[in-house]
Amino acid sequence: MNQDTDLFSDQIKSLRAEIDGALSTIDLPSRPEYLYTPIRYTLLGGGKRLRAILVHLVGEALGADREDLINAGLAVELLHSFTLVHDDIMDQDNIRHGQDTIHEKWDESTAILSGDGIYVVSQLIISKIKTKTLLAIKAFNKAALIVCEGQAYDKAFENNYDISLSDYFLMIEKKTAWLIGLCAELSGIISDQTEETNTQLRSFGLNLGRAFQIQDDILEVYGDVETVGKSLGSDLISGKQTILTVLAREDNQEEWLSSWKNIKKMETQTAILRLRDYLNRKNIIDKAYKYVEEYVGKARGKLDVIPLSHRDKLKQFTNIILKRVK
Amino acid sequence: MNQDTDLFSDQIKSLRAEIDGALSTIDLPSRPEYLYTPIRYTLLGGGKRLRAILVHLVGEALGADREDLINAGLAVELLHSFTLVHDDIMDQDNIRHGQDTIHEKWDESTAILSGDGIYVVSQLIISKIKTKTLLAIKAFNKAALIVCEGQAYDKAFENNYDISLSDYFLMIEKKTAWLIGLCAELSGIISDQTEETNTQLRSFGLNLGRAFQIQDDILEVYGDVETVGKSLGSDLISGKQTILTVLAREDNQEEWLSSWKNIKKMETQTAILRLRDYLNRKNIIDKAYKYVEEYVGKARGKLDVIPLSHRDKLKQFTNIILKRVK
Repeated sequence: MNQDTDLFSDQIKSLRAEIDGALSTIDLPSRPEYLYTPIRYTLLGGGKRLRAILVHLVGEALGADREDLINAGLAVELLHSFTLVHDDIMDQDNIRHGQDTIHEKWDESTAILSGDGIYVVSQLIISKIKTKTLLAIKAFNKAALIVCEGQAYDKAFENNYDISLSDYFLMIEKKTAWLIGLCAELSGIISDQTEETNTQLRSFGLNLGRAFQIQDDILEVYGDVETVGKSLGSDLISGKQTILTVLAREDNQEEWLSSWKNIKKMETQTAILRLRDYLNRKNIIDKAYKYVEEYVGKARGKLDVIPLSHRDKLKQFTNIILKRVK
Repeated sequence: MNQDTDLFSDQIKSLRAEIDGALSTIDLPSRPEYLYTPIRYTLLGGGKRLRAILVHLVGEALGADREDLINAGLAVELLHSFTLVHDDIMDQDNIRHGQDTIHEKWDESTAILSGDGIYVVSQLIISKIKTKTLLAIKAFNKAALIVCEGQAYDKAFENNYDISLSDYFLMIEKKTAWLIGLCAELSGIISDQTEETNTQLRSFGLNLGRAFQIQDDILEVYGDVETVGKSLGSDLISGKQTILTVLAREDNQEEWLSSWKNIKKMETQTAILRLRDYLNRKNIIDKAYKYVEEYVGKARGKLDVIPLSHRDKLKQFTNIILKRVK
């Protein structure tokens, strides 16, 4: 088992290196520098590449064409990157993957335009796919629109104390989970699978994506700032809906709001410690982890469309989500 | 001749109404309102629809499928609209087509996200094309990247007194002309024309697009604010390169800079009058108009790929550019 885990961990590392390599060799002009310098800065700026890794793991299991896999992996990473660049402007987040965001390093205009450019490049890459090209393009852009919807809910829900758990799940399905669903679905499409298989693959990714976002919300409060590579607590301070605040409200709206009112006034580090204290005491963190486990479990339940020989690898991939610390 | 002109003018009006109708019936969800309300506001907010009209005129001349034409026309209007929404944030322009821009009516986050959404919807529509779908998608996104490059040059060139006439032409080719080139090219593609024909159609549109942008620069100073529907002089105030400033610099850099330094300090209306005075006196406005005529002429020279029976209609379309006042 340990040996398997080591082997898997080696494969992930090598996939990540391969994806980083492919990202760094995307054929972009050098001019205008105003556009391409920040695009390069972002694409080379690191990231876990979990989405492209998922594309590769599912695609390899289903026998997808190697070049198609690389292009599909690149396209989803670019789509993800485009949304991050624009979301970081909207949310005024200044650090991403341990480096200054574009609007922080340059300015907002540069960030708006280079985000646009990254999305256009993703279109050029997805249309290079040779197998079921049009189906891949349509799934890709359908997902892109859903991600925009998710970000819209995220913004619209800010500082709204009436948001329910089901509103929250609608938001994260669109904002985060659908793109991870797309990764698995795309690999099904370019491996020429049936529509049913592709839908189940997407459902695998959707559930994994829900778990991923809930973990993300938890890490915002319980993570280590050095490891996470972005500022902690910023979502909370800007009044975002997270699994923790929604559950805390559902547990005891009045008590939560009065505690939160106090906590919000504190300096960030103290606020985070006090917040952890509240969430621990009320077992909210346990409830949140249960959701992570539940959705990872649901994701694993969809893996029977993956050949047995590769199934364990994808199960191990779900472990990365379950146990991630960044 | 007059009767022809009237007939043509009626056809343009009816095409515009048809395009507006198609824009208003694009199948968009109602929620999240944060995303779709500003998208609808923009798409219904008017515009000359010259790009979609060009798609229709060329496509009808070449016998394109009706539904494909509608989708191609919608897609280019959406692509154009997306770039306007984002450019207006970058340039802090608050009025467009006589109404508040999104970032002015709502805020920047709303404008960034709804611009993104409009571009995604354009992708979904362009991929509905039935004839030469993939070629159409690739031409569409190649053009989108070039438009981003053009906007990058536009931003990078702001307040730079070293920009030459050839830099200016590079910028407007990418920022404006390529998209108009795409309109003609797309109609060639969906009419299943040869690559040579499509290239020539694009070249027709590119030349027309150059004339269009030069006219736009002229209207910024010589237009009537009510007719143009956006604030005059704003490009100049923000230090943009326009045909007028570039020609004025080429004519006499020292005299221009010292005059411009004074003019810039004046209240906008006075500044515009003083500017007209300078440009008239130096014959710069005449030189600028000569460029409009030159490029309209070059565009007309490319029309031999259009069947004779339709050629006059496209010639009349170039007249709209030549004589436009808004």
